[in-house]
Amino acid sequence: MSQSAAQQIREAIESADEVFMETSRKGDAAGLAALYTEEGQLMPPNAGFQTGGQAIQAFWQAVVDAGIKEARLEIREVEVHGDTAIEVGEYTLHGEGGTELDAGKYIVIWKRKDGRWKLHRDIFNSSLPAPG
Amino acid sequence: MSQSAAQQIREAIESADEVFMETSRKGDAAGLAALYTEEGQLMPPNAGFQTGGQAIQAFWQAVVDAGIKEARLEIREVEVHGDTAIEVGEYTLHGEGGTELDAGKYIVIWKRKDGRWKLHRDIFNSSLPAPG
Repeated sequence: MSQSAAQQIREAIESADEVFMETSRKGDAAGLAALYTEEGQLMPPNAGFQTGGQAIQAFWQAVVDAGIKEARLEIREVEVHGDTAIEVGEYTLHGEGGTELDAGKYIVIWKRKDGRWKLHRDIFNSSLPAPG
Repeated sequence: MSQSAAQQIREAIESADEVFMETSRKGDAAGLAALYTEEGQLMPPNAGFQTGGQAIQAFWQAVVDAGIKEARLEIREVEVHGDTAIEVGEYTLHGEGGTELDAGKYIVIWKRKDGRWKLHRDIFNSSLPAPG
């Protein structure tokens, strides 16, 4: 792949991350779930695999209900293989008034379907010390 | 890629996982670190990015010192793109006498270098309820 094609895909993932962040600011759990593939899997800490739209939406609804007002994502690297992209990044979760409630890291495996990049596998964990 | 080539790579990743498990049973943190690429990154819960052999070895030494006697890995899926493989799996950590101390899930991005598959990016989290 040419440098510029790789750059274009990185920009496409950046745009997809922007949509994710914007959707999180709306507290729209259904909207977040719709950003995943049909067979999408979310692998959150302290819970099992969340597979498919219904489970993913329920997870994000619980996050919204817990008072998270925004998820911010920052790309560290994107590696592309055809219609698959591997993103390594860092996130922060924010509450009322922008208070930072969590900071951590993630790997997302993206799949391009019908020209749109969707989250296919999504795993993250906190970088903060364990409570207690 | 033909079905059998993909199958061969899955078997290669299975073998690499076997080596990882065997090395963990020896409590050999340096040996575990040697299974990662030179630019390898471990992304453990409750800590930042552990980059390179020295940091990765220190992390696994702390795990050994905490009384973990064995890490067991089970593949859920392997996806191959040339010299890159994406593994989604489940792990359990065991203490003295085989007691299960943690159970969780992971994504490992593998890279094939000089014919050997090495861990390049490694992120995991617990599936057990958060303590407290």
